[in-house]
Amino acid sequence: MKASVFALCATIFMPLAWCVAAEQRQVERWGVFEVALKGPAAGNPFVDVDLSAQFTIGQSTLRVNGFYDGEGRYVLRFMPEALGMYRYTTKSGVRELDGQQGAFECVNPSTGNHGPVRVKDTYHFAYADGTPYYPFGTTCYAWIHQTDELQQQTLKTLAEAPFNKIRMCVFPKNYAYNKNEPSIYPFAKDSAAKFDFTRFNPAFFRHLEKRVTELGSLGIDADLILFHPYDEGRWGFDRMDAQTDRRYVRYVVARLSAFRNVWWSMANEYDFMRRKQASDWDDFFQLVQQSDPYNHFRGVHNGTRWYDHNKPWVTHASIQSANLQDAKQWRRRYKKPIVDDECQYEGNIAEPWGNISAQELVHRFWLGTVVGCYVGHGETYVDANDVLWWSKGGVLRGQSPSRIAFLRKLVEEGPPVGLEPLEGSWEWDVYAGGRKGDDYYLVYFGSHQPISVRLPLPQAEYKAEVIDTWNMTIAPVEGAFRGKASIPLPGKPYVALRLQKRQ
Amino acid sequence: MKASVFALCATIFMPLAWCVAAEQRQVERWGVFEVALKGPAAGNPFVDVDLSAQFTIGQSTLRVNGFYDGEGRYVLRFMPEALGMYRYTTKSGVRELDGQQGAFECVNPSTGNHGPVRVKDTYHFAYADGTPYYPFGTTCYAWIHQTDELQQQTLKTLAEAPFNKIRMCVFPKNYAYNKNEPSIYPFAKDSAAKFDFTRFNPAFFRHLEKRVTELGSLGIDADLILFHPYDEGRWGFDRMDAQTDRRYVRYVVARLSAFRNVWWSMANEYDFMRRKQASDWDDFFQLVQQSDPYNHFRGVHNGTRWYDHNKPWVTHASIQSANLQDAKQWRRRYKKPIVDDECQYEGNIAEPWGNISAQELVHRFWLGTVVGCYVGHGETYVDANDVLWWSKGGVLRGQSPSRIAFLRKLVEEGPPVGLEPLEGSWEWDVYAGGRKGDDYYLVYFGSHQPISVRLPLPQAEYKAEVIDTWNMTIAPVEGAFRGKASIPLPGKPYVALRLQKRQ
Repeated sequence: MKASVFALCATIFMPLAWCVAAEQRQVERWGVFEVALKGPAAGNPFVDVDLSAQFTIGQSTLRVNGFYDGEGRYVLRFMPEALGMYRYTTKSGVRELDGQQGAFECVNPSTGNHGPVRVKDTYHFAYADGTPYYPFGTTCYAWIHQTDELQQQTLKTLAEAPFNKIRMCVFPKNYAYNKNEPSIYPFAKDSAAKFDFTRFNPAFFRHLEKRVTELGSLGIDADLILFHPYDEGRWGFDRMDAQTDRRYVRYVVARLSAFRNVWWSMANEYDFMRRKQASDWDDFFQLVQQSDPYNHFRGVHNGTRWYDHNKPWVTHASIQSANLQDAKQWRRRYKKPIVDDECQYEGNIAEPWGNISAQELVHRFWLGTVVGCYVGHGETYVDANDVLWWSKGGVLRGQSPSRIAFLRKLVEEGPPVGLEPLEGSWEWDVYAGGRKGDDYYLVYFGSHQPISVRLPLPQAEYKAEVIDTWNMTIAPVEGAFRGKASIPLPGKPYVALRLQKRQ
Repeated sequence: MKASVFALCATIFMPLAWCVAAEQRQVERWGVFEVALKGPAAGNPFVDVDLSAQFTIGQSTLRVNGFYDGEGRYVLRFMPEALGMYRYTTKSGVRELDGQQGAFECVNPSTGNHGPVRVKDTYHFAYADGTPYYPFGTTCYAWIHQTDELQQQTLKTLAEAPFNKIRMCVFPKNYAYNKNEPSIYPFAKDSAAKFDFTRFNPAFFRHLEKRVTELGSLGIDADLILFHPYDEGRWGFDRMDAQTDRRYVRYVVARLSAFRNVWWSMANEYDFMRRKQASDWDDFFQLVQQSDPYNHFRGVHNGTRWYDHNKPWVTHASIQSANLQDAKQWRRRYKKPIVDDECQYEGNIAEPWGNISAQELVHRFWLGTVVGCYVGHGETYVDANDVLWWSKGGVLRGQSPSRIAFLRKLVEEGPPVGLEPLEGSWEWDVYAGGRKGDDYYLVYFGSHQPISVRLPLPQAEYKAEVIDTWNMTIAPVEGAFRGKASIPLPGKPYVALRLQKRQ
């Protein structure tokens, strides 16, 4: 994969975030502008001090929350989305933090900076500059909670892998194959070595931000999971009181929303967090929506009970389901982008969600992709040291990633608008199909093995190619095809057909 | 397969049905007793003459409809279900057919005659004598409409195949791969060579009965399809008037209900017969129910719109669906035996219903079977002479029948009660499972490939065997297992686990 180039502008204050300076004169579009202010260190600034700022360009004003970064340091981060001169004024109950003013110029983005990803045409995605984005995500829940060596290996693996999105937890995990203690936590500890849930640990968040930045440099969006049930009281992050939950959400959002490659996932398997009420999730969604001035994606990942993705604060349906044959129906139900980010993982562990064959995972990717949905990857092979990609990262050992890379390349080679399900006469004629206007069709046959097929092509000439989804070959079919012409196929399963109108 | 032995008692009148004699003194239980009477040949006896009889044993009386067999010959057929002396008296508006009396003794059945199949324990089947019956059906819609040579070949193939039920049409087919003209029709032709829908062709029905008898000799039940849409006006059997439809149903039932190996299927893809009303199907069901004194199975096979199998006259849900992962739900919905007799066919034709791989068909058989449902086979490989098994019979060329034979053997080796879905803690732990009481479990992993599994076994010792569903091997797992013990597995897809309590 060709990694996006992120210009890293290290400063003495924030060596980890990209394009950051204490008082930059120029900031690239969708980069990070940062103001650091000196303020009180006494008491508990995480709770006691409020700080925000208004950023203004022309007639447009955005309100941004600041955050306390420890040692008397207060920070405001801002991601400019318009070119031109921005001015800001801070607001705080603390005198030295209040009424501070400044300005910077937002200039053209550097190469590889396409801005944050947005919804496009109801079901699809594109970067803010219009560059298409087709999410091919993977899952490494707790990779930032492992040894530095392992985290470096994960980044190295990701640099070579086909993934442009990663699902990852803010909190550490206490779960099968995954019980190691992290070295750093989001909350500070008190003198009795117990968590003080009123004080964040800025070092933890700087670490998180560094990893998010590094992912950005690799062209990978970070789907940050705010809550999850895999704690079971070990650290207590799954059972904080409502006030702490909300303070935590506001703090994470204040720190990270200026990073253009962030997505917000309210939780993983939210319905397995038995101590939360159904309405808590609505509240978190709305809190994030109010706190994030850039409107990054907001989703929530189900266990067995799906969240109602029709609710107005949900930007895309984040789904756990093995039933990709139903993907077309999910589009109809939600009329939003569909991301099935857990359709079970390639692996061989005992749990059924983590032991499907590579062939089956690739099959599910194809099923979802050709009907204009997006499918996520994970890998769970038993390992002597319990380093499973799905949770800790490390190396990929499966056979699906190369096939997913092949599929991604095919999708990217297609016309820039996303795939759409084939309706009407296509529906019965093919097992699953996808189209991009009239000049491009991608038809997948799954476990079907016809030696020929008739498709309802328009009355124009199409060239046909047979795609072997497993062996990753593309073979042209001799001749040109139009209307209901019979197109020969190899008579084996797991092939697809690409049809493109002849110019 | 070991064929059941059918004692064939040829007579001068009815050389084709088994255990038939003009005036037998003894008839075996579930055999065919037949009375032939001389009557008027003038006019149109098919329409003009009514004939029935009362058969009495002890306090029990059954009313049986007779039928006109051509050339002044009237026939009553009867399948005795109780041992002992039966007496009968005929009834007709025609004097010479009325008030005829006779008697015969019903004696023990011959070897291999287990009687007709009945529903057992809500979801399963057994022969009338209690012998378990697990339907493993196939599909040869129009095999009796082919050349005699081809029909002989079909019977030869069936003798070696694993199937004990066959879906077959009374009417010929006019459909893709299947447009040849039959040599004989159910209706007579008039002087203008047009069908006279008021006159049946007894020779056609004698041929049908011969084939049903031969199937019985092979231990195969005939699932007779009374109507189907694959005519499209060519012969007009799909668009007869209501009176003709009903006369036809009564005639078929009068002729064939005494054959113990008959099932009634109202139609294939009934919902594709656009000229029929929804209520027509209810009427046919009830007409068959009233006309068949032995209560043979009554079902109807859907296209895309399922019939409501909860209706009281439906004996089992006959389903077309590729979604065997839902089979457990169908049981819950209908609380009747589930027979998915068309889950798409092994083959390579262009149509998606006829081109799944053998691997996929075997997978679907396993998915349905382990949760206590029954799955049907069909084969549709392109052939130079258009002889596709699914419609014309002939030879089997696919790779699924040997695997289906292997599965059937496994099921038959299990305890005689049928498989039941695993509920509760099994449901999440295994992909699909089946149980037979506490002493036997059959668990299927499909596209999952765990290297070990923990199942909620009771606290008793179980021996485990790994079944390779494709390579048809059974390998014992060393050791004994109880409770949540970890059971090693080969880490490859399409395996199953058989667990049996140690004695």
